[in-house]
Amino acid sequence: MKIAVLPGDGIGPEIVAEAVKVLKALDLRFEMESAPVGGAAYDVAGHPLPESTLKLALGADAVLFGAVGDWKYDTLDRPLRPEQAILGLRKHLGLFANFRPAICYPQLTHASSLKPELVAGLDILIVRELTGDIYFGQPRGRRTAVDGHFPGAEEAFDTMRYSKPEIERIAHVAFQAARQRAGGRGGKLTSVDKANVLETFQFWKDIVTEVHAQYPDVKLDHLYVDNAAMQLVKAPKAFDVIVTGNMFGDILSDEAAMLTGSIGMLPSASLNAKNQGLYEPSHGSAPDIAGKGVANPLATILSAAMMLRYSLNQAEAAARIERAVDTVLSQGLRTGDIWREGDTRVGTVAMGDAVLAAL
Amino acid sequence: MKIAVLPGDGIGPEIVAEAVKVLKALDLRFEMESAPVGGAAYDVAGHPLPESTLKLALGADAVLFGAVGDWKYDTLDRPLRPEQAILGLRKHLGLFANFRPAICYPQLTHASSLKPELVAGLDILIVRELTGDIYFGQPRGRRTAVDGHFPGAEEAFDTMRYSKPEIERIAHVAFQAARQRAGGRGGKLTSVDKANVLETFQFWKDIVTEVHAQYPDVKLDHLYVDNAAMQLVKAPKAFDVIVTGNMFGDILSDEAAMLTGSIGMLPSASLNAKNQGLYEPSHGSAPDIAGKGVANPLATILSAAMMLRYSLNQAEAAARIERAVDTVLSQGLRTGDIWREGDTRVGTVAMGDAVLAAL
Ligand SMILES: CC(C)[C@H](C(=O)O)[C@@H](O)C(=O)O
Ligand SMILES: CC(C)[C@H](C(=O)O)[C@@H](O)C(=O)O
Repeated sequence: MKIAVLPGDGIGPEIVAEAVKVLKALDLRFEMESAPVGGAAYDVAGHPLPESTLKLALGADAVLFGAVGDWKYDTLDRPLRPEQAILGLRKHLGLFANFRPAICYPQLTHASSLKPELVAGLDILIVRELTGDIYFGQPRGRRTAVDGHFPGAEEAFDTMRYSKPEIERIAHVAFQAARQRAGGRGGKLTSVDKANVLETFQFWKDIVTEVHAQYPDVKLDHLYVDNAAMQLVKAPKAFDVIVTGNMFGDILSDEAAMLTGSIGMLPSASLNAKNQGLYEPSHGSAPDIAGKGVANPLATILSAAMMLRYSLNQAEAAARIERAVDTVLSQGLRTGDIWREGDTRVGTVAMGDAVLAAL
Repeated sequence: MKIAVLPGDGIGPEIVAEAVKVLKALDLRFEMESAPVGGAAYDVAGHPLPESTLKLALGADAVLFGAVGDWKYDTLDRPLRPEQAILGLRKHLGLFANFRPAICYPQLTHASSLKPELVAGLDILIVRELTGDIYFGQPRGRRTAVDGHFPGAEEAFDTMRYSKPEIERIAHVAFQAARQRAGGRGGKLTSVDKANVLETFQFWKDIVTEVHAQYPDVKLDHLYVDNAAMQLVKAPKAFDVIVTGNMFGDILSDEAAMLTGSIGMLPSASLNAKNQGLYEPSHGSAPDIAGKGVANPLATILSAAMMLRYSLNQAEAAARIERAVDTVLSQGLRTGDIWREGDTRVGTVAMGDAVLAAL
């Protein structure tokens, strides 16, 4: 088994180092190899996703990814910007299924913007389609408008699209996730669309409804994306699993993550049909605190746990990591992002060490 | 001056009746004429936006709109569904500028899902472009995919697009709103895009930045839509005016409205270049409570106030209504949606009467 380790930019290297430390301590048989990605790769190789990095990722069973991006790359042409690396990896690895849990840890309920009773025990899963939709649809670009409100004016455009098999496969993944979370039968899936306006999402709704026939034990409902954005604020615990497209999933998964108040705790997984996966924290590269040793490594450590479970078939080791994280939280250890009066404030390395000790 | 009154479906007729009652009591010179819209229009005329209703709206200075939609129309073909009326009115009247305030009334801070300190005094304005983007872009439909992940498969697609003059005019509206809220100079505008992925929104960001040169006193910043969805939850009071496209605005304005916890209080205005406008509550038709006399008419009454201010040039009358609403809240009168122990619970008509009395 081989893991490609791509630390990236900002706090990426620091938090990935802690996850690697934890993985090594497990004494499992796998090989790890690192490569630059994002701005760090642009600096050394002139491209955010160099050929050699992509090759390493394609040949690995899993990718452990830190984060990419820094203000200093903002003026580069779009194809050279750090985030293109992540879009390229998703595309070339065919990582169509993105899992973004939004969990409120009992020890951190107070960190949420929401009243504690609305988030205590929150545990929802957003399944976001990750290789289709308006992210990759062609044609796109700039041109002279031939119709619309201002014919003759310069305009920019993009294409939203979903094919039937693309919707079917993500729907299967989501129904199975709902069923599995319910212990093998049952569960609830909310499909989020904008069928009242978009052809693409009327089609989405139709296909998800069709696939539902194969999962009669799972309760399915449909919400418009604007309503979903509201219900997440109003009563997040009313959700179980949410499935949606790439664009809506981008927005709702971040909204849901922030509801917990502790985005520094939230891992994510992006899988392809062969269970190869890319694992990364839900938060970004936080260039403002990079190199200061204060970043929270727990989302990355928990991403490594997801990696063990989904791509490396090591569910027991994954559970060990998760229990260790729970233990350090219960010990009152906190990095700055989740610290409050009375807690023990620790830095990135000390937090990694604490997880190691708790293993 | 002429007002077209379109009550619509669900609670629409009840709440609009209260707003009309308040308008009549002001003793201003205008004519009001009603027409069916949405499902109610489909029932009597076979179309959600009959020719006669559209004609009335086109000939009026302002449209006072209730709400449309009911489960019973869900099985109709899309062009006949109630919400097509609202899309049709926006398009035919050219209502490109949508104003959606998200205000937390001091008397109702507790109604929010968020901790009171995060929303107390919240007063932000979302300016949503309303006649462009993927809502109206052509081509759209279904076809056989010729490329992508599954060539040969059935797919559905839509076109996102914005032309330069479309972005310019909404940017001007937003900069002016920011300036005006700051008392004629200054203010802050946040432009929300997804320039890291979409051609349309890189263009959006470029043009908004260009227009900014004409408003040097207004502070401009840019946020990606996923980040905006997070920051709204984390620190909503950090925003002042937000400007964004039709699709992102749909999602973010509903999220922001729900942050206040009292969406039954929030009005909206949709204006064209001639200051003709459509005024409606931010909430929907709530078919589950229709006809029970319990709906909150205040968002509609406040929409009527916005109408007086923006389309009918009656700022003083608008302010009178707003003060009256404030008075009834301070008297402790509440409809069910905002009621809690200790308040005086009133129905739709009694709430309208109380506003009348307070005028
Ligand atoms: C960096 C960006 C392209 C990316 C996305 O929009 O998918 C990010 O927001 C995410 O959610 O992983
Ligand atoms: C009913 C629907 C078409 C509409 C929209 O998406 O614009 C609604 O959600 C709104 O925000 O007014």
